[in-house]
Amino acid sequence: MNKRLVKPSILPGFMELTPADQILFNKMMDTIRKNYEKFGFLPIDTPVIEKSEVLLAKGGGETEKQVYRFKKGNTDMSLRFDLTVPLARYVSQYYSQLEFPFRRYHIGKVYRGERSQRGRFREFYQCDIDIVGNEKLSIINDAEIPSLIYSTFKELGFDDFTIYLNNRKILTGYLEFLNLEDSAPILRAIDKLEKIGPEGVEEELMKLGLEKETIDKINSFIRIEGSNDEIIQQLKDLDVDNELFNTGIEELATVIKYIGLFGVPKKNYKISLSIVRGLDYYTGTVYETFLDDYPSLGSVCSGGRYDDLATYYTKQKLPGVGMSIGLTRLFYQLREANIIKADESSLTTVLIIPMDGFEEKAVEIANRLRAEDIYTQIYLETGKIKKKFGYADKLNIPYVIVIGEDEVKNDQYTLRNMKTGEQRSLAVEELIKCLK
Amino acid sequence: MNKRLVKPSILPGFMELTPADQILFNKMMDTIRKNYEKFGFLPIDTPVIEKSEVLLAKGGGETEKQVYRFKKGNTDMSLRFDLTVPLARYVSQYYSQLEFPFRRYHIGKVYRGERSQRGRFREFYQCDIDIVGNEKLSIINDAEIPSLIYSTFKELGFDDFTIYLNNRKILTGYLEFLNLEDSAPILRAIDKLEKIGPEGVEEELMKLGLEKETIDKINSFIRIEGSNDEIIQQLKDLDVDNELFNTGIEELATVIKYIGLFGVPKKNYKISLSIVRGLDYYTGTVYETFLDDYPSLGSVCSGGRYDDLATYYTKQKLPGVGMSIGLTRLFYQLREANIIKADESSLTTVLIIPMDGFEEKAVEIANRLRAEDIYTQIYLETGKIKKKFGYADKLNIPYVIVIGEDEVKNDQYTLRNMKTGEQRSLAVEELIKCLK
Repeated sequence: MNKRLVKPSILPGFMELTPADQILFNKMMDTIRKNYEKFGFLPIDTPVIEKSEVLLAKGGGETEKQVYRFKKGNTDMSLRFDLTVPLARYVSQYYSQLEFPFRRYHIGKVYRGERSQRGRFREFYQCDIDIVGNEKLSIINDAEIPSLIYSTFKELGFDDFTIYLNNRKILTGYLEFLNLEDSAPILRAIDKLEKIGPEGVEEELMKLGLEKETIDKINSFIRIEGSNDEIIQQLKDLDVDNELFNTGIEELATVIKYIGLFGVPKKNYKISLSIVRGLDYYTGTVYETFLDDYPSLGSVCSGGRYDDLATYYTKQKLPGVGMSIGLTRLFYQLREANIIKADESSLTTVLIIPMDGFEEKAVEIANRLRAEDIYTQIYLETGKIKKKFGYADKLNIPYVIVIGEDEVKNDQYTLRNMKTGEQRSLAVEELIKCLK
Repeated sequence: MNKRLVKPSILPGFMELTPADQILFNKMMDTIRKNYEKFGFLPIDTPVIEKSEVLLAKGGGETEKQVYRFKKGNTDMSLRFDLTVPLARYVSQYYSQLEFPFRRYHIGKVYRGERSQRGRFREFYQCDIDIVGNEKLSIINDAEIPSLIYSTFKELGFDDFTIYLNNRKILTGYLEFLNLEDSAPILRAIDKLEKIGPEGVEEELMKLGLEKETIDKINSFIRIEGSNDEIIQQLKDLDVDNELFNTGIEELATVIKYIGLFGVPKKNYKISLSIVRGLDYYTGTVYETFLDDYPSLGSVCSGGRYDDLATYYTKQKLPGVGMSIGLTRLFYQLREANIIKADESSLTTVLIIPMDGFEEKAVEIANRLRAEDIYTQIYLETGKIKKKFGYADKLNIPYVIVIGEDEVKNDQYTLRNMKTGEQRSLAVEELIKCLK
């Protein structure tokens, strides 16, 4: 019978890794998770498929077009496109069973049917944390999030990264003070500063019909520079008579002070008055994080404070602050830029290679090693010794134990360091000591 | 503005846990993963959404009806319904980049649009391992899988469980020997033994038109009992002149011998000649695992040997052996049966409670503890001390540190054991020692 073969392939826009890369990816995910847990965040895991009515309660916008939505029987369902809407739904649904402030982390896949392009994914992992208060939430939480970003990226192996901070109230208040009532398009223009430069922003503001004088004010405002303390002093010196503006400065000053108290080095956080981060969601502190040596990667971790998480599901006022790492995209970019390499990625410490006929002894030794939590594989196929060593080599397994007639007779086994080529003849107890 | 609220809820057939239960669930998943890695299995992670053409290459059957299949634009896509088809596709697709035997584990969600009923899920985690050979694969691998099942369930906290084994070749060979050419419906009847009892099986076989004498032979065959060695001896004593039958006995004897060498206690594995496990997939060794005290849970871990993994995608012959734990269902059943409880589930070791105004010192101490990898949360909201203690209590956080005026003055902080109520006054260094 000659079956027609189907070409094995996946859809464009989906990331799939070789095992060596997957090990690296999982290590990053484990590091992120460990840091989230160390700071007292609780895990949740929500369905990938939700009722469209619930998931798309907010409706409209670019997001809805990208949603994977379909019917099964009469049920209209959609795949989640972020972890924030599921959080809002979760907190509203289990409100009476949760303790507030509710600190949750969520690491999971989300789906967006975007136009496929390099570095953009239709399925990707988000690693989110949020602290959700009931009615109120201390501003100090806004400083703990950056300290967790710092702790996480530090443990991921980065030294040179900067968490840029701002407070939406400052810019919004300043625009109010300038009597610019429709702030949304102006904020949208400012948000493009990184992409289009100050001249570009100026041009966009002109198109909006702003007067030259106003544009100059905005332009010099978002370019205020200096140390964090200097920026705050300059903002105060502007002597702006607007409550929102002044609340924003006060909040930002508190957040900056506490980030320092949380032990984040001065070089790793910085006020940037042009950071806006979207338009209708964040209401106070906002963050973006850049790797200093790879600015082209864009923000690798973003977030901020919002006044009310779940207005579509509950009347409870649920203010919160959170951030998200887009792990799939981050991993892809780090791999592309050769910042991380899979060359030496192995979970297994040792491969036991028995000569043909010595499998029983191999099993016995594997039992001993595994009982000591040494990650061990046995090569159980028959074949040439060279091929077996090649297997260990290709899988980057650092050690090999060879078992043959002489070894069994003397109860001494050859331990080979695959990197250096060094070989030693050892009793089982010594093998364990060496490999631990 | 009075928005219409949408009732926050999820679709039936999807499991969603409280954080306390989620912690337990994750612990089980971590234990499974650790054991899989300890035995030298490599991680992979495939897309949840695949091309329908690829995922459903095999076509037909009950499974296809349950698949979540939909179009986005012109693309016909489906959600994966198991991790085996994606493995077959993965191995075929990356064949030249993989080393064989390819040992992979995969823990991920799969989707089946089953009719919703208690204990049945439409989204559930599978935890799969498979060892895939290129052209050939040693029979000793069939013994290593049960030793990994043993190691995993032991570490999950179970002592009394039994891995039931059989070899499909034995029964198939025996039916050949009885000149029963169409073995599929007979195997299907035997597969129901657990559900319908021996009389039920007899009845089904009569309906198939088998002669009384043949039925008696089958019935006494599948009821052969005794120790593993005794069963194998009885099978040999039947003196059946059929090659498949005798190969099966030989394989089963080797597997049984090696399971013992792998250190699995005799009470935890047992030959059961009635185990069939489906019809068109497994070709040799088959496993099912039951918790001795909870047989009604059904098999909690099943698997077996197959001749050829990926006939729909490649002409390469890829024999393999593997098993799967259906974690979502297992967790649900253990929770329902009160075998696992969330009462004491906390990841956080200590909650720091500052009196209002002492937040800075709380942050300072949190830094110290976190630097020592002590999982620490700070209660940052203002409020009554009683409420703050209640928070620690409800989240099952085992320790609380209180920081107030006296504490700061004396640089001695109150450490409260939330279970015993015991309180001690300690310097920061002593706090760290105590909590580590």
